[in-house]
Amino acid sequence: MAEDNVIYVGNKPVMSYVLAVVTQFNDGSDEVVVKARGRAISRAVDTAEVVRNKFMPNVVVDKIEIATEELKGSKGDMISVSSIEIFMKAQ
Amino acid sequence: MAEDNVIYVGNKPVMSYVLAVVTQFNDGSDEVVVKARGRAISRAVDTAEVVRNKFMPNVVVDKIEIATEELKGSKGDMISVSSIEIFMKAQ
Repeated sequence: MAEDNVIYVGNKPVMSYVLAVVTQFNDGSDEVVVKARGRAISRAVDTAEVVRNKFMPNVVVDKIEIATEELKGSKGDMISVSSIEIFMKAQ
Repeated sequence: MAEDNVIYVGNKPVMSYVLAVVTQFNDGSDEVVVKARGRAISRAVDTAEVVRNKFMPNVVVDKIEIATEELKGSKGDMISVSSIEIFMKAQ
C-alpha cells in the first residue's frame, strides 16, 4: 500500500488508510501523498479529511491534483480513468 | 443544478454535468466551479477531466479544495460528509 510516503486508496474501509497516513507521519515523514483512481477517489478525500479533522490538526492539504490515466481493459482495450493525488503536509 | 457558475454534481450520468459545464463556459463564464459531496466526488473529478480532455482544451483546473460538511441525518443526528470544489478556468 505504501511506497515511501504514498498511500494508494482502494476498497478497504477508510480507517485503514487513515491509520496508514497517520503512521507515515508518526514515522517521521513530513509529507504524505494520498492517491486513488475511479470510485476510490471519494474515499481518498474522506481519508484526508478524517486525518486532518480527527487525528492530526497540524497536517494541512498542501495541494490536490487530478488527472486521467489510460488503463488496459480486460479485453485489451484502453480505458480512461480519473485519478487524484492529495498532498498532505505536517506543519 | 447551476447557481451562477456552480455545477452541483449528483447521481446523473457524467455527461449531463460535462454539458452543463461546457454550456456555462460557452455562455461567457470564465470560471466554473464543480462541486460534489460524498460518493459523487469521483463523478465531479470525472466531469472536470472529461471537460478538460475532450471538450475544452483551453480550460484548466485552477484550484481544488476539499472540506467536511455537517449534514442532518434522517434521524436528526449530525453526519460528516466530505466535499470537493474544483475551480475550472478558461484561458
